[in-house]
Amino acid sequence: MSPVDAANTVVDIDLGDRSYAIHIGAGLLDQASSWQGLPRARSALIVSNETVAPLYLARLQAQLQPHYPQVLTVILKDGEAYKDWHSLNAIVDQLLAHAADRKTVLFALGGGVIGDMTGFAAAIYMRGVPFVQVPTTLLSQVDSSVGGKTAINHPLGKNMLGAFYQPERVIADLATLDTLPQRELSAGLAEVIKYGPIADAAFLDWLESNMDALLARDRAALAYAVRRSCEIKAWVVGQDEREQGLRAILNFGHTFGHAIETGMGYGAWLHGEAVGCGMVMASDLSVRLGLMPASFLARMQRLVAWAGLPTQAPAMAPERFIELMQVDKKAEGGEIRFVLIESLGKAVMRGAALDLVADVIRAHSLLAAA
Amino acid sequence: MSPVDAANTVVDIDLGDRSYAIHIGAGLLDQASSWQGLPRARSALIVSNETVAPLYLARLQAQLQPHYPQVLTVILKDGEAYKDWHSLNAIVDQLLAHAADRKTVLFALGGGVIGDMTGFAAAIYMRGVPFVQVPTTLLSQVDSSVGGKTAINHPLGKNMLGAFYQPERVIADLATLDTLPQRELSAGLAEVIKYGPIADAAFLDWLESNMDALLARDRAALAYAVRRSCEIKAWVVGQDEREQGLRAILNFGHTFGHAIETGMGYGAWLHGEAVGCGMVMASDLSVRLGLMPASFLARMQRLVAWAGLPTQAPAMAPERFIELMQVDKKAEGGEIRFVLIESLGKAVMRGAALDLVADVIRAHSLLAAA
Repeated sequence: MSPVDAANTVVDIDLGDRSYAIHIGAGLLDQASSWQGLPRARSALIVSNETVAPLYLARLQAQLQPHYPQVLTVILKDGEAYKDWHSLNAIVDQLLAHAADRKTVLFALGGGVIGDMTGFAAAIYMRGVPFVQVPTTLLSQVDSSVGGKTAINHPLGKNMLGAFYQPERVIADLATLDTLPQRELSAGLAEVIKYGPIADAAFLDWLESNMDALLARDRAALAYAVRRSCEIKAWVVGQDEREQGLRAILNFGHTFGHAIETGMGYGAWLHGEAVGCGMVMASDLSVRLGLMPASFLARMQRLVAWAGLPTQAPAMAPERFIELMQVDKKAEGGEIRFVLIESLGKAVMRGAALDLVADVIRAHSLLAAA
Repeated sequence: MSPVDAANTVVDIDLGDRSYAIHIGAGLLDQASSWQGLPRARSALIVSNETVAPLYLARLQAQLQPHYPQVLTVILKDGEAYKDWHSLNAIVDQLLAHAADRKTVLFALGGGVIGDMTGFAAAIYMRGVPFVQVPTTLLSQVDSSVGGKTAINHPLGKNMLGAFYQPERVIADLATLDTLPQRELSAGLAEVIKYGPIADAAFLDWLESNMDALLARDRAALAYAVRRSCEIKAWVVGQDEREQGLRAILNFGHTFGHAIETGMGYGAWLHGEAVGCGMVMASDLSVRLGLMPASFLARMQRLVAWAGLPTQAPAMAPERFIELMQVDKKAEGGEIRFVLIESLGKAVMRGAALDLVADVIRAHSLLAAA
């Protein structure tokens, strides 16, 4: 399967009567066929944010108007800090103010925050209406569009309120990545890199050979990276839709990463930045537990840094770091469960002694440099 | 199947991997076997209200303490007016404040409001934790414990935010009905009566023969009424879990009823009272559309009144009444869909001319008497 063939492709997510397709390609937003065959309704609602709306809202509206008599919009502020009950309520209020019924189709036009929040609104509005993901960031194209996880944050923790809820369709237009700031592109690459160590050693090799092309937004390279990431995630999610077991491997780097995000306050670090650094820490823990050779840590540090991502956590005491990981959703009875690598392309869930975890934190945080 | 045999029985709700059992009997709350075999967890959370908690909370806590190291409680104010985001947040805050993980089991101890809200909290807390229904009102035992509908209200409409989410188990202790005010018993009988016209003509006959026994809280009569109602609802829900078609017949009387509830402000009328009156109005509409003979309306009016329920809607202009029905979740594109009776034991979904609907409203509202 050559990267060049990967432009304009479809990844099918097989989940029985909740199956859907991810369309990947450049220019899909403006193609009429992208919007055909969706559930019919009197109303559609596009949810976007102040950054994305000026770029793409009018074009999506133009595509949807032939299909829906009423096309409503909600434009939220941009950022993880707004992934909260207040924004969710803005969506619900708009729907109710326009008497949107329970066939109304919601469209998430933006990154992961917009997708998570719109998906959650769709999951709970009148106990569930259809929704379509139109991810405009690399992160959301490779990650949050697959798997049906929707959520909002709570002051006491990230993604604490949410639902498993599948979209009708995902339209991942690679052309929208042209307007993505470089920092956000790097953040997206964190989730792309993740799929190598947890599931596909050959993909890790491919990433090392193509990182420069990805950073230069080479469209064929991006298309292959998005497709391969979606395929791997679809394979994992297809076996474990509700995150009872295997699916947890998708959280490689996320346990450390969430602690960084929560500790710094949502929005200070991008999610992908925290995951990038978290992968380095989880790789080190894998090495310290004797699962992987030290060369693996060096390889991950190099690739994460190459992608433009931080490899050092912010200055935060190990005790605080650990406390934040203990309230993570994956913790059970206070024991932190880590996703670790036991061989290239194979992940495992394990607990770890807290003093070893503290060593990892000290080795990869700016505290050490102080 | 004689009513006398019906004490201490189990109705199995078959929904594949979301199947569960409804245990019906007197004294189940204090039986250890009621609480065995539930999902294990570090924490349990009992949600109840200020009316029910003084009666039963300590007894449920005593039963749960051997199973869960941490048994938390949230006591909400009593009433439909508190089935809102604020109360839901009180549940979530309590869970997060005690680092309750995603295995935590929630217990809903109370009526339909507590059940709906606890179920919705369970559906969205960390994207879903298990919950158990312990319904202490007739209404919740026959209705809201079956079918997986959970929700909270919004200022612009009832049950506007919610999810379909199944409990692990339902413990319907008939002894808890001894403390139920007569007005609430009557409200519960509205949902019991409903099952006759929509699904079981023989049950309608049985109700007419046993209404006095039900009002006197004869335990065998109650046991049969609860079991038969759960069986019928289970049969309907089993065929249509997500309310795409058939399940809508369970809303007989609810379209008119919700308009009464919303128009009067939540809590002024009990849900069952609004449904009782709503069934009379829907029966009249069935007659006016030529589906049923006039004798059916008379029969329903007599049975609803006999159960101690109102048969006249409050003074509200037909235009306002209809406007409220148009924002009902069951409305599609502004057209109101009514559940009507086309023969005894058989319901049908239909629209109706608005002038005919207005006639029905005028014929059964206190406006006419003014």
